[in-house]
Amino acid sequence: MKILVIGASGTIGSRIVNALSAAHEVITANYQSGEVQIDISNIESITSAFETIGKVDAIICATGNVAFNAFSELTRDEWDMGINSRLMGQVNLTQIGSQYLNDGGSITLTSGIIADYAIAYGTSAATLNGAIEHFVKAVALELPRNIRINVVSPTVVTESLSVYGDYFPGFNSINAEELAKYYVRSVLGVETGQTLKAFAGN
Amino acid sequence: MKILVIGASGTIGSRIVNALSAAHEVITANYQSGEVQIDISNIESITSAFETIGKVDAIICATGNVAFNAFSELTRDEWDMGINSRLMGQVNLTQIGSQYLNDGGSITLTSGIIADYAIAYGTSAATLNGAIEHFVKAVALELPRNIRINVVSPTVVTESLSVYGDYFPGFNSINAEELAKYYVRSVLGVETGQTLKAFAGN
Repeated sequence: MKILVIGASGTIGSRIVNALSAAHEVITANYQSGEVQIDISNIESITSAFETIGKVDAIICATGNVAFNAFSELTRDEWDMGINSRLMGQVNLTQIGSQYLNDGGSITLTSGIIADYAIAYGTSAATLNGAIEHFVKAVALELPRNIRINVVSPTVVTESLSVYGDYFPGFNSINAEELAKYYVRSVLGVETGQTLKAFAGN
Repeated sequence: MKILVIGASGTIGSRIVNALSAAHEVITANYQSGEVQIDISNIESITSAFETIGKVDAIICATGNVAFNAFSELTRDEWDMGINSRLMGQVNLTQIGSQYLNDGGSITLTSGIIADYAIAYGTSAATLNGAIEHFVKAVALELPRNIRINVVSPTVVTESLSVYGDYFPGFNSINAEELAKYYVRSVLGVETGQTLKAFAGN
């Protein structure tokens, strides 16, 4: 299976690449490194990357930015960071990428636990994670040629606790290797339109 | 209680006004008519309207546009119609309007059943309705001075079946007078952070 991993150099993406590369051909993509460069917030960048890559069997998006701030302080520019990346970046990747997927291929996006459980400064993330989860549920019914789509919703990643841990007081974390399994399940399994919640007991 | 109803001339808004005006002071607002004009997609319009109105006890938003189209055909301009109105229109109304609410006041927004149950051409609506429901859940924890916020999610309205009925095959409709009760419950009740789902058995 030929699998494109976007955000391949990241904490999560690199474990996804590890989990899949033994048995599959993995193409690594990042914003500024990897075999292919993709800025998901830019439609031309997405299209250009797929013109280079050609057809694939699976697309995994392990990237997507969103702003964190108190609601009363959130500016439209901060909202737009998430709208253009976390939300429309993944929407555009789905719209364009699905044209480059082989029959029966899959798309796996990323949201986050903040959709379900609030944290301080997390209102924009909650909103846009929730948006992408609803998007996946709806668009799964429209994708042609048996193409599937799911979204993985991680809790805070153990390897990132030194950076983000204070924002998730008392939350259980997941290590990136365990988290990568949810992406493998989406790619190699049969589910579609699902939010795979990579957390429990929160 | 002084209650601002935005979209007051609409099928839903007019029944909300009817339900509240006997016992309360209702200020009617529309895009181009009513006592006050508000374009929720325009921050200056929202701010200017509240400068005119002054403090209120409740804000009800019974308006918000979103585009309907097949996912493969949806353009960014069509997505932006919903992003700027259904999503950010109601977000901006919350951010600005909360500053003009008296202590213990409330905000009631509108999403729709498509967040939960898919219809053809409904992917953008599903995404942005879902976004606003997640927004309400998260922002309820941040609003100051005991201000509450809820969102009403209507199924198709009986009075609009001649226009929209074909998009909701087999869905149960709700008449606008029954639907208005959910807005009354949000304004006069104690709930916050909730999606009041004005449908059952779908």
